[in-house]
Amino acid sequence: MKNYINMSKKELIEEKEKVMHEYQKFKSLGLKLDMSRGKPSKEQVNLSMDMLDVINSKSDCISQDGIDCRNYGILEGLREIRKLFSDMMGVNEDDIIIGGNSSLNMMFDVISCFMTHEISGEKPWLKQEKIKFLCPSPGYDRHFAICEYFGMELIPIKMNSDGPDMNKVENLVENDITVKGIWCVPKYSNPQGIVYSDEVIKRLSSLKPKAKDFRIFWDNAYCVHDLEESVEILNIMDECVKNGNEELPILFSSTSKITFPGAGISALACRGNNMDILKKRFSMQTIGYDKINQLRHIRYLKNLDNLKLHMLKHRNILKPKFELVISKLRKEFEENEIIKWDTPKGGYFVSVYVMNGCAKEVVRLCKEAGVIITNAGATYPYGKDPFDSNIRLAPSYPDIKELDKAMDLFMICVKLAALNKLIESNV
Amino acid sequence: MKNYINMSKKELIEEKEKVMHEYQKFKSLGLKLDMSRGKPSKEQVNLSMDMLDVINSKSDCISQDGIDCRNYGILEGLREIRKLFSDMMGVNEDDIIIGGNSSLNMMFDVISCFMTHEISGEKPWLKQEKIKFLCPSPGYDRHFAICEYFGMELIPIKMNSDGPDMNKVENLVENDITVKGIWCVPKYSNPQGIVYSDEVIKRLSSLKPKAKDFRIFWDNAYCVHDLEESVEILNIMDECVKNGNEELPILFSSTSKITFPGAGISALACRGNNMDILKKRFSMQTIGYDKINQLRHIRYLKNLDNLKLHMLKHRNILKPKFELVISKLRKEFEENEIIKWDTPKGGYFVSVYVMNGCAKEVVRLCKEAGVIITNAGATYPYGKDPFDSNIRLAPSYPDIKELDKAMDLFMICVKLAALNKLIESNV
Repeated sequence: MKNYINMSKKELIEEKEKVMHEYQKFKSLGLKLDMSRGKPSKEQVNLSMDMLDVINSKSDCISQDGIDCRNYGILEGLREIRKLFSDMMGVNEDDIIIGGNSSLNMMFDVISCFMTHEISGEKPWLKQEKIKFLCPSPGYDRHFAICEYFGMELIPIKMNSDGPDMNKVENLVENDITVKGIWCVPKYSNPQGIVYSDEVIKRLSSLKPKAKDFRIFWDNAYCVHDLEESVEILNIMDECVKNGNEELPILFSSTSKITFPGAGISALACRGNNMDILKKRFSMQTIGYDKINQLRHIRYLKNLDNLKLHMLKHRNILKPKFELVISKLRKEFEENEIIKWDTPKGGYFVSVYVMNGCAKEVVRLCKEAGVIITNAGATYPYGKDPFDSNIRLAPSYPDIKELDKAMDLFMICVKLAALNKLIESNV
Repeated sequence: MKNYINMSKKELIEEKEKVMHEYQKFKSLGLKLDMSRGKPSKEQVNLSMDMLDVINSKSDCISQDGIDCRNYGILEGLREIRKLFSDMMGVNEDDIIIGGNSSLNMMFDVISCFMTHEISGEKPWLKQEKIKFLCPSPGYDRHFAICEYFGMELIPIKMNSDGPDMNKVENLVENDITVKGIWCVPKYSNPQGIVYSDEVIKRLSSLKPKAKDFRIFWDNAYCVHDLEESVEILNIMDECVKNGNEELPILFSSTSKITFPGAGISALACRGNNMDILKKRFSMQTIGYDKINQLRHIRYLKNLDNLKLHMLKHRNILKPKFELVISKLRKEFEENEIIKWDTPKGGYFVSVYVMNGCAKEVVRLCKEAGVIITNAGATYPYGKDPFDSNIRLAPSYPDIKELDKAMDLFMICVKLAALNKLIESNV
């Protein structure tokens, strides 16, 4: 495979003809595939079917503490499910609040709470002149969307191979009083699969924010979602406590990609004033979350060791898909510099960088031929990738044959967009 | 039974001695009973146990529209569960959003949304100088608590036998631009069991609010929770539409007291700008609610007719408890004017009025002898009953023997508090 970058205009035009021919062939297939969202596959949700039997009409539905889970109450969640999350998240049981079916909803609730209520004695964010939020980018579109919804200014932060650019973060957090938060997906980040280094976590936990109401939103969505041997990251809460910063982090996690997406259990963890404020809010907003589903989860998952065995089954399904994507990219583009990619060790995505100015066009071409890919730009604040280069591939949902086909098309589109760009600029 | 009101001081003192003796006897029993919250009993939650079998490891988990309920998506809820709620709430399917396990949470979310975002082109409530909320009283403490949490001024509105005092409501809503909402539990109100009359509903639906962002919060919590033949109330949405007021009402309901409290399904219904604003918010806060539980509910409850048959079973359990409470009150106090009560035809409460200035004392006396009753005042804004007279009894949770005992104690405490008051004022 030749490197397009070094081709003459004539060669580029000839190559385009060939690639266009392949593209047209694909278009005629009438594909309908989706690589857009980090959705577990049918095979993966099948793994947890037995969980639907552990609570049935013959069950006692009584928790460890003797609570009838079929009735109101127990706002903070069953003790035994708090224990499981405390093990998974590396925090004390007392620092855990169990939520509903969505950790995203808990993140939204926390931000919504801070918009209308004081934290650390500071005015509610809605009553402050300006609120800025740091968004390591590329990142998770739904994180950014929450901030945008509440009218904050989103500040993109460059992601390095070991986490967000900490020089930039420190500079902003420690000097700008309007900077109130940062989004972090510390392990197998969405979309790059980056694992935060010890140094990055140490620097985050020892921040000296200018704003007393600055918080780290630590969305550990993929904490047990390994594709290879598990990677351990530093414990953010422990590090923060060491530095007298116990109120800095708010941690989130869920079983969405462990059992059933949308029918799982979520949790947050925090300390001190955060906990007081959030418990107050949750006590106003509900009498309690779904304890039957909490009981179902704990009786099925049992404990962290057993949960990790369950995650191995997910890994066995996911790994061949990720390997396929990476090996196809490698084979096709090893010597062709029109695309770069990250090779994740966990999580749900493969992040690629096509030639600057080509990402939207690649997504459009794919769509026209029946393959849906996450919108280009979606991984950046306001949906705007300054280089129009990053594309998030989500290989989990399609089966491996479909994925193979979708990748073939994707690679053709990458080439086609690059060829157009190169021909155009090569006048 | 003599009427304490007409007794001489000597007679009162003699009577007190007798009643005190009975009270002491009760105290020595070491009771531990709870009549404080509208919680279904164990017998009632047992009614829905078969629901726990309808989704199991052999189930397809596929909705009517072909959606795999074990995966992400479908923010507004499954079509078939929306249909059920639309039948139950008397609105179009398109006007329904299905929520999580708690309609209280949906009410909180709506108010939280209006605090931070524009409705009908008006500034977010948090950015307005002052926000007042009308609170028909006695009413539901958790409604009032939400408003208090957000710093609103709560305006108590007298409840008449057919609903809130509409002269007062019209006067305030139509002349005061800071009045932004009213709480309504239109059928079997909490705690009085009052059913709103056609006239009250017509007047509510034809309000001409001074504030464009005034809304009616219509919590139809007990719409199918009859203790006798079902009472039909006017359809608030239809009436509002007739009056060009389709954006006035936001309706709420849930299956909490139909299947499992805390593990049920909630819904809201609204139109126009309300729907746009709330859909936007919900789309930011979650990818979707628990569809497996939605599927479980619809496969078990099937349709409104079947749901009503299910409610008959609840009625058969609840009715003897309510009859016991009322018959005991009648027997003991028919001629003794120290207490009055409402006789509900549905819902979860019996509301009583003890002598002014006695409610707190009655609750305290009960507590001291081991029976927990809803805090006196809880049914009023800020927890302050201006007459210290209303007490909410919740007969659903204890079994009938316990209830019988708890009522005996309660009646003794009512007498004791009244005797003290009368002796004191009869110097």
